[in-house]
Amino acid sequence: MRNVILDCDPGHDDAISIIIAASDVSDLKILGITTVAGNVEVEKNTVNALKISELLDLDVPVVQGARRPLVKKSEIAPEIHGETGMDGPVLKDPEISALDGHAVDFIIDQVMQSDEAVTLVPTGPLTNIAMALIKEPRIIENIDEIVLMGGGTFGNWTPAAEFNIFVDAEAAKVVYESGVPVTMFGLDVTHQVIATQDIIQRVGNIDNKIAEFVKELLIFFGETYKNHFGFNGGPIHDACTTMYLLKPELFKTEYLNVTIETKGEYSYGMTVVDTLSVTGREPNTNVALGVDQEAFWSLFEEILKSYSGGSDNE
Amino acid sequence: MRNVILDCDPGHDDAISIIIAASDVSDLKILGITTVAGNVEVEKNTVNALKISELLDLDVPVVQGARRPLVKKSEIAPEIHGETGMDGPVLKDPEISALDGHAVDFIIDQVMQSDEAVTLVPTGPLTNIAMALIKEPRIIENIDEIVLMGGGTFGNWTPAAEFNIFVDAEAAKVVYESGVPVTMFGLDVTHQVIATQDIIQRVGNIDNKIAEFVKELLIFFGETYKNHFGFNGGPIHDACTTMYLLKPELFKTEYLNVTIETKGEYSYGMTVVDTLSVTGREPNTNVALGVDQEAFWSLFEEILKSYSGGSDNE
Amino acid sequence: MRNVILDCDPGHDDAISIIIAASDVSDLKILGITTVAGNVEVEKNTVNALKISELLDLDVPVVQGARRPLVKKSEIAPEIHGETGMDGPVLKDPEISALDGHAVDFIIDQVMQSDEAVTLVPTGPLTNIAMALIKEPRIIENIDEIVLMGGGTFGNWTPAAEFNIFVDAEAAKVVYESGVPVTMFGLDVTHQVIATQDIIQRVGNIDNKIAEFVKELLIFFGETYKNHFGFNGGPIHDACTTMYLLKPELFKTEYLNVTIETKGEYSYGMTVVDTLSVTGREPNTNVALGVDQEAFWSLFEEILKSYSGGSDNE
Amino acid sequence: MRNVILDCDPGHDDAISIIIAASDVSDLKILGITTVAGNVEVEKNTVNALKISELLDLDVPVVQGARRPLVKKSEIAPEIHGETGMDGPVLKDPEISALDGHAVDFIIDQVMQSDEAVTLVPTGPLTNIAMALIKEPRIIENIDEIVLMGGGTFGNWTPAAEFNIFVDAEAAKVVYESGVPVTMFGLDVTHQVIATQDIIQRVGNIDNKIAEFVKELLIFFGETYKNHFGFNGGPIHDACTTMYLLKPELFKTEYLNVTIETKGEYSYGMTVVDTLSVTGREPNTNVALGVDQEAFWSLFEEILKSYSGGSDNE
Repeated sequence: MRNVILDCDPGHDDAISIIIAASDVSDLKILGITTVAGNVEVEKNTVNALKISELLDLDVPVVQGARRPLVKKSEIAPEIHGETGMDGPVLKDPEISALDGHAVDFIIDQVMQSDEAVTLVPTGPLTNIAMALIKEPRIIENIDEIVLMGGGTFGNWTPAAEFNIFVDAEAAKVVYESGVPVTMFGLDVTHQVIATQDIIQRVGNIDNKIAEFVKELLIFFGETYKNHFGFNGGPIHDACTTMYLLKPELFKTEYLNVTIETKGEYSYGMTVVDTLSVTGREPNTNVALGVDQEAFWSLFEEILKSYSGGSDNE
Repeated sequence: MRNVILDCDPGHDDAISIIIAASDVSDLKILGITTVAGNVEVEKNTVNALKISELLDLDVPVVQGARRPLVKKSEIAPEIHGETGMDGPVLKDPEISALDGHAVDFIIDQVMQSDEAVTLVPTGPLTNIAMALIKEPRIIENIDEIVLMGGGTFGNWTPAAEFNIFVDAEAAKVVYESGVPVTMFGLDVTHQVIATQDIIQRVGNIDNKIAEFVKELLIFFGETYKNHFGFNGGPIHDACTTMYLLKPELFKTEYLNVTIETKGEYSYGMTVVDTLSVTGREPNTNVALGVDQEAFWSLFEEILKSYSGGSDNE
Repeated sequence: MRNVILDCDPGHDDAISIIIAASDVSDLKILGITTVAGNVEVEKNTVNALKISELLDLDVPVVQGARRPLVKKSEIAPEIHGETGMDGPVLKDPEISALDGHAVDFIIDQVMQSDEAVTLVPTGPLTNIAMALIKEPRIIENIDEIVLMGGGTFGNWTPAAEFNIFVDAEAAKVVYESGVPVTMFGLDVTHQVIATQDIIQRVGNIDNKIAEFVKELLIFFGETYKNHFGFNGGPIHDACTTMYLLKPELFKTEYLNVTIETKGEYSYGMTVVDTLSVTGREPNTNVALGVDQEAFWSLFEEILKSYSGGSDNE
Repeated sequence: MRNVILDCDPGHDDAISIIIAASDVSDLKILGITTVAGNVEVEKNTVNALKISELLDLDVPVVQGARRPLVKKSEIAPEIHGETGMDGPVLKDPEISALDGHAVDFIIDQVMQSDEAVTLVPTGPLTNIAMALIKEPRIIENIDEIVLMGGGTFGNWTPAAEFNIFVDAEAAKVVYESGVPVTMFGLDVTHQVIATQDIIQRVGNIDNKIAEFVKELLIFFGETYKNHFGFNGGPIHDACTTMYLLKPELFKTEYLNVTIETKGEYSYGMTVVDTLSVTGREPNTNVALGVDQEAFWSLFEEILKSYSGGSDNE
């Protein structure tokens, strides 16, 4: 049983990531869900996190975090996730509310207080994680791993940079230079888990409200990816992080050096991955490069089916 | 009466700045003293702040802040301020202690709770101020001015950058782009207030323990400035901020655009001051460029004499 | 019949590129071979170009060019091409010699004098081409295409940069911004034409001295690629340019925007290829991304066989 | 007697610089005048150089050079020097014409052929000089000094950069890193030689056509400096170079390290002068920081008076 904090900007694929972590198939202990400005403004992301928690009957703290990146001006992406940040399925307004306080302090407190090491799972810009590391560097000793979605050997927001890292490259620099072990799910691998029509149909065949919710997320997300990038479905980027925590052997990773470009004219926010080991810099990141797609989607189905559960879930 | 938070890394000239603010001549209301890593490690700066408070019988909270810059690796300057960060005079270990909590939260709380606007007076790297602005952007509305020591049209730590800005240029960028009115005491003006032998003698002629303490600070600081930079005395940089708050008319300022260079190969941490108004960028900073030296030192003497006070001070 | 200038730093794969262009299968009119500092010092590259010309009985001017990059300090790669820049086969010292004058002037003169447009085919750093464009911008009007080896969506000399572009990124910037149509053979495609053992054997089966020479080049180059990069053979990068000029349909290209990163901390020399068309910048480069490998090697065999020719070639 | 090549973009102050070098008071041997794109397009600068030569009966080659900077896009400054690049006095179209060939080759040839070392005197962007150094690095051995106008510890085109360096900072980087001794007349000193009304009157009192021409130059230039920068006259920047060659003791110089910033976001083109010797980088530049103003203007008068000469000059 692993202690995790899900730091996110839900977000279609963030939502799916939470659903995976919260399922009966998972043995993760979710200490809390923290939100960050990313796909849309942080307030919207917090509302979405609350809606998902309520939908899942998930009783963990939701704590709102950074409203803006460390140094750069804010940047959001409503063209990908819609106006609410999680367009598509319509959930009622949440009755539960977020915990008072700031995500940065929640992360620091949880890590400092926990008897066992904590795993941070950021699937949005790394602002909260970086601020926690800056504000209380001693948390480093009790974080066993940062399992993040971001970056890759190519970009989607610019040719060189993936959205999460581009939004706050300085925060990414802080995280990658912190000394904490990082496992990185970048576009190389997340573009291999595309929810095609076939996948959507497999999800549609599962008869419970969570699978129904996921289906609607995938339909909306698939549309925007088709229109914006010409893809044949939406890559469920963020879900890789929690799928990995449930079953690491799904993924092929290499231990490589990754540095963050914060100075470039055309490459700001690039995760410079030393794939060919030509830099002489020490490896610092477990970079996911491949995935067993069939095993991935099978586990994904299993997870969604687990929500059909006994009588209390429907 | 103006509410101020003194954010500092004492530091010889920081110490003098506090002494000015805390004197009977001053009508500033010190809400607290917050410390930051700068000249030396933050823990040493906190001890120094406590020692000064105790020496002054100053009953205001001292709160420790950032241990490291936002993005850059730490950098300290013991060659200027000595091993303790305030070498020269020897003060006993403080009996009072710092408030629990972090300077960033103290600043946010004070600003959010205060009925009247708060003036921030940073005389070290701008890490605490930047983190407060990032963590709670709404404080902007209740800060009336940031009166800081840093930068200039030339540098001292590199040819382009002054130490405080160089240590955390990203933090400076956040501050200067925040929209809060900034009044900047850079090297242009602080190099005009050098505590020469003549000044030290004038201070030495004042008979109270605070003046004695200041004299010892000036002697040590003058030595390092002589050895390191070839100056004929130490410039009491940070003191300009509080002298300005006591008597703005001492200084000649111009309202100019200032931007922070964070990308340069040889100019990282430069405060790019648009002195000739050639950039077309809007003025955002009140840049101090001149000082009435005689009036400055006269007021300085008056402040130190005020500590001779009644019977209870000696 | 197309007028070409082969601008190169031979170099194993440069040598092969020349052999392709000079063969009976080719209808290219080689106006000259110009050399540039790259894999090794320019003088060595000139000697190698002369040796190849002599081996091929090729009667075209060889003109030496830039000894150093535009702005950056020189950088060479003897670990890949050996001490001579073309280690492996041993050719006797050339009896012919290079034309007097500088490659930059030769390029300018040829382009300005030619009745028909000239195609430049750089397979080394772009220093000569950039200097010609700077010195005489009017050549732009009579260059129909620059068909170059360089760059890609990933690097080999650094994670972000391919060697030719890394050596002189400023020159590359000048070329890509010149307005001349660029067709770019980067690592995406050149890593698809690896001379494996099987290919070397096919070359070895051809019975003439040129094929023999090529075989020896491939053996040496394959070894260094195996040792340095773990490849199962040497990619004959530069040969793509002339193969394309002989038979464009071998390659799959896309018309995309490419910009050159010259400011980055970790990404200097990156060719930023807007594969997903997310930048809004206009396409300016024909980027080769795929190759019909079997057709490529078949044509390659045919070219080498053509050197068996009549009685005069052996 | 010192061999000089005047590399310039006349330009009011360039014109004056030529007049100084060509006077009877001077013992400089002018090998040629080369032009470069700078204040205005190179063709206009060449016409101006020819006009000045004709006015002075100066029989030296004028050779046109670079039309554009090395890497950056072109930038000109007609707002300072007027549409012709030398507005104010009206000279007839020149009957003499420029030498064929390119300034870069002229410089290389002169330096390589000269028995005695050559002094280069660039008063515009450093494109020609840099290209000569790149094209034929061996000229370094026969250049004894580069005496240039450019840079300073502050800027005029941006807050950090002076116009000549800003226009082609990459060229400046090549020059300053070349190893050739550089003597630099930057804004620190050139802003000390302002042609005020008083100076213009002293020039006006000299009765010959050259002094008359200079007076008109100063009047026009003074107007633009007044309007654009609020100065009380035009600084005759470029003239410092030749005045120094005639009488070095007019100037106070310090031997300091200077590096060129080419990466900065707000400081591109800065000459980073290590005034306080804090970088640990070796001095490489003789930086002019002061001038004996009265001696300067006296010599200036003497030079202009020398043109009254015998009967043959008028």
